[in-house]
Amino acid sequence: MNELKEKILQEGIVLSEKILKVDQFLNHQIDPSLMERIGEEFSERFKNDRITKILTIESSGIAPALMTGLKMKLPVVFARKKKSLTMVDHLYTEKVYSFTKKTVNEISVSKKFISSQDRVLVIDDFLANGEAAIACLRVLEKAQAEIVGIGIVIEKSFQPGGKRLREMGIRVESLVQIKSLKNGKIQFVENE
Amino acid sequence: MNELKEKILQEGIVLSEKILKVDQFLNHQIDPSLMERIGEEFSERFKNDRITKILTIESSGIAPALMTGLKMKLPVVFARKKKSLTMVDHLYTEKVYSFTKKTVNEISVSKKFISSQDRVLVIDDFLANGEAAIACLRVLEKAQAEIVGIGIVIEKSFQPGGKRLREMGIRVESLVQIKSLKNGKIQFVENE
Repeated sequence: MNELKEKILQEGIVLSEKILKVDQFLNHQIDPSLMERIGEEFSERFKNDRITKILTIESSGIAPALMTGLKMKLPVVFARKKKSLTMVDHLYTEKVYSFTKKTVNEISVSKKFISSQDRVLVIDDFLANGEAAIACLRVLEKAQAEIVGIGIVIEKSFQPGGKRLREMGIRVESLVQIKSLKNGKIQFVENE
Repeated sequence: MNELKEKILQEGIVLSEKILKVDQFLNHQIDPSLMERIGEEFSERFKNDRITKILTIESSGIAPALMTGLKMKLPVVFARKKKSLTMVDHLYTEKVYSFTKKTVNEISVSKKFISSQDRVLVIDDFLANGEAAIACLRVLEKAQAEIVGIGIVIEKSFQPGGKRLREMGIRVESLVQIKSLKNGKIQFVENE
């Protein structure tokens, strides 16, 4: 997605060989028009897959997932990292290990929002080690829902998440794939 | 906003005299079409106010704020409850006291996203005691930005937040106002 690549080149900041900061348009400040086009792109890629529901994780996944849901006319569920006061239902809960922070977090989804009838598209902002995506897959497995694919805004291809998921047979659609952040330079995978 | 009232009556669950659960369409599962119409409504109400930026708080404020930003063609900033690894900039940080949970949390906004040139619309899903909204106002005050108004999806008028804010001279636009949740029954303020 060329427009997204240009935005990353213009506004992304390489903080280290592993960390790209895109808080100018994706995960702190949001560019709604760009999110709309991201939603259109995911919608186009998964239009023939009879998807019934979109699943993401708060907070940075919400914007691209919501726009995809708007374009596909589908409900969006965001897994919560904290259980809220009103989450009195039965929940699917999974652990997510963060390699960068060396912490374990939990995500929870109310059982009533994912059923064995659902064909689910998972959307997230970043794919690095794949831990968050795999936690979503485990939720879907418990719910006996079908995972149709994963839509990722920015895949860091030099980290193992994309390979792990594809080797599990999961369809992963990344709007851009980053090959390297070495020497402060953003290099994309060219044959996307 | 009649459509929102109907949705609340159909899908809202009264958990107690103070707590209305709307996780079916607002803060766990999201109805993107309803969010779009909420965005249109806020856009219509603030269209003549020369707003330059929308501010909300993760996570439940993101969906209505994003749709308002889309309709108004404005960037959206969401205040973060946790400081992320990439938040290495100078931050505005404010405490938010939660009456229900009896805890103090912090919200942070990067200084680079709010300037003294900005005319800001704050959007949030709920208004109860007003603590979150007031934390946003303090961020805007520190940034010397102008607060144009606050757009709320659901105001619980039996709690003091709306009165507090209006007495401070803040324009508060709530799409629905709930008068009471007593006896498990949702009653709206009629003269909205």
